[in-house]
Amino acid sequence: MEVYFDNAATTKVVPSVREIMLETLDDNYGNPSSRHLKGVDAEKYLRYAKNVLSKQLKCEPKEITFTSGGTEANNLAIIGIAQANKRAGNHIITTGIEHPSVYEPVLYLESLGFRVTFLPVKKDGKVDLAKFREELCDETILVSTMAVNNEIGTIEPVEEIATIIKAYNDEHGKEIVYHVDAIQAFGKQILYPKRIGIHAMSISGHKIHGPKGSGALFVDSKVKIVPILFGGGQEKGLRSGTENTAAIAGFGKATEEMYSNLDENLFKMHTVKDAFIERVTQIEGVTSNSGEAPHIASISFRGVKSEVLLHALEERGIYVSSGSACSSNHPALSGVLKAIGLEKDLLDSTLRFSFCEYNTLEEVEYTIAVLTELVPVLRRFTRK
Amino acid sequence: MEVYFDNAATTKVVPSVREIMLETLDDNYGNPSSRHLKGVDAEKYLRYAKNVLSKQLKCEPKEITFTSGGTEANNLAIIGIAQANKRAGNHIITTGIEHPSVYEPVLYLESLGFRVTFLPVKKDGKVDLAKFREELCDETILVSTMAVNNEIGTIEPVEEIATIIKAYNDEHGKEIVYHVDAIQAFGKQILYPKRIGIHAMSISGHKIHGPKGSGALFVDSKVKIVPILFGGGQEKGLRSGTENTAAIAGFGKATEEMYSNLDENLFKMHTVKDAFIERVTQIEGVTSNSGEAPHIASISFRGVKSEVLLHALEERGIYVSSGSACSSNHPALSGVLKAIGLEKDLLDSTLRFSFCEYNTLEEVEYTIAVLTELVPVLRRFTRK
Repeated sequence: MEVYFDNAATTKVVPSVREIMLETLDDNYGNPSSRHLKGVDAEKYLRYAKNVLSKQLKCEPKEITFTSGGTEANNLAIIGIAQANKRAGNHIITTGIEHPSVYEPVLYLESLGFRVTFLPVKKDGKVDLAKFREELCDETILVSTMAVNNEIGTIEPVEEIATIIKAYNDEHGKEIVYHVDAIQAFGKQILYPKRIGIHAMSISGHKIHGPKGSGALFVDSKVKIVPILFGGGQEKGLRSGTENTAAIAGFGKATEEMYSNLDENLFKMHTVKDAFIERVTQIEGVTSNSGEAPHIASISFRGVKSEVLLHALEERGIYVSSGSACSSNHPALSGVLKAIGLEKDLLDSTLRFSFCEYNTLEEVEYTIAVLTELVPVLRRFTRK
Repeated sequence: MEVYFDNAATTKVVPSVREIMLETLDDNYGNPSSRHLKGVDAEKYLRYAKNVLSKQLKCEPKEITFTSGGTEANNLAIIGIAQANKRAGNHIITTGIEHPSVYEPVLYLESLGFRVTFLPVKKDGKVDLAKFREELCDETILVSTMAVNNEIGTIEPVEEIATIIKAYNDEHGKEIVYHVDAIQAFGKQILYPKRIGIHAMSISGHKIHGPKGSGALFVDSKVKIVPILFGGGQEKGLRSGTENTAAIAGFGKATEEMYSNLDENLFKMHTVKDAFIERVTQIEGVTSNSGEAPHIASISFRGVKSEVLLHALEERGIYVSSGSACSSNHPALSGVLKAIGLEKDLLDSTLRFSFCEYNTLEEVEYTIAVLTELVPVLRRFTRK
């Protein structure tokens, strides 16, 4: 049996995505910038995908910019917004549990002279709102927090953060921009950034059965942003380079598929996740650090090295991820597991199991059977 | 009949490229960064493509960095090298006929305080070497020139430029870096950057029947460069973001295909190009501005608006590109056609026809027949 429980790392494209990608490779292979029919035919896929995304996010199509993936979307948001607004101030607020594609651009900006605050999180992985409120100041120009944590599945209080920012902006006549890395949330929640008060939001295709190489940044048309890649002026000048029509078309299709059956898909993910957590925590010395997201379970196996368990599972055809501690030397960036105060002994004994709507309870049963057998054995082995 | 003569804009993927892309979508869909078998299987495609490219460029696999395309490769080269070497000086030399993905990053650096020299070109579109030699100075850190011009097909004297830089570096104890935008040259020439003395070179997949969204930057391991996208540290830290395995695998396969039959492919392109230029210039008032590249013909149709002719050809199923003048307001950037001194009347009467090894003499015949009919009619129409 092959069990792929690493869907937060990447997913397999679904048949309809594969099909639309092939259309762009076979017949409609033109360059969307070309002025002839082949260009027009290719450009239709961009328009299709932009319409799907803007409908889903309840924004204007022109507020969507396609990128080469989530990493580029986060870089564009953070660097592009900070640089465009630097006359208004030089202070950026983010959290200690962001993905590297957020905290590395922030550290880059810090090296350029921006001042950065890394907010702590509580034991449940949620941003400390009281602390956040205190850090807002006259110099603050950008706040960036994730919607769903990629390692433990915490759903962050983005609405509350947006409300605090709005109140602060209104009171002080400021225009602090709120960016949300929604890469693990997209396709797993309804997200209407403009209604919530999110000014920029990064999303990605390959976490929801779309192609790798697909991503997008929503930016409210009122927000100032400058490009980070320069050239032919595609995407209204915000992202130059010949558009990857296959990836973009596939991204649109994956979004359509995921959201047209969202309730059912979420029910399926939750069923698998909840059953897995319930069963796995019945094994002695096994505990869950999982948040509310429907697709991510973070499980600690006391006395077992995560790397060893990962490869033992691999040998049985079960693919999961090690939720290892962050290796950054930056003191405020302690890694997600450390940040939630997980005891030291468990930091290297934690695995991430992440699900999609195609996983089954049968796969859960098989995985539980394997874990029930392996964990005590590996534990004895580790203790030697 | 459908005739695609816009292969310098983009090309159709060949069956073997399509096939390897599907492998990465269907069975080997893992994230190359995952530590389990699915990750290892995905990572093999990266290694395969890196081996193909490094063999072809006669460099080390670690000297190849995959990007989302040619535009990103040029941005990474220019911004990444200039930023990494700014302590050595602040002067950059490029030419007045570069692609926007080179001159826009250069203009961005100019806005940061770098000093930029845009070299003029001669009537044949080639860089003025005497002028180039004069511009090298103690502050120069980076020279960037293209290998083949995308609008007219001039083959630029990159070896001579490399030799001049090497002599200057040796004489003055300098380490000026030479970057070449080889996006229109790759797959149309043998290019061994390290033998020539090129320190960084941008290439792209979708001009040679590979996928859009594929590109790479060769950087000599001795050259200092910093990333422009930050995150998970993929590609040895130089290009973060989950690797687009479909695009990368397809790029490798396209390169293998193109170079395993290079002589034959070049012969086919040249045959079509030469026949086309010979026949089209027999039409009254039609002249060629084409360089030596095997796949690009720049043709001026006196008294005919290029935009009108482009769409008239489109109606007959012939797809070409308008080689319009550059719209930049920067005085040194006058556009390729202006830069070669094309008379003003012809600037808006010029089209680019670009070929691949699958184009045929039959397609040339058909296009010539259509042009012979259309050009006099459109000319009368324009004169009214």
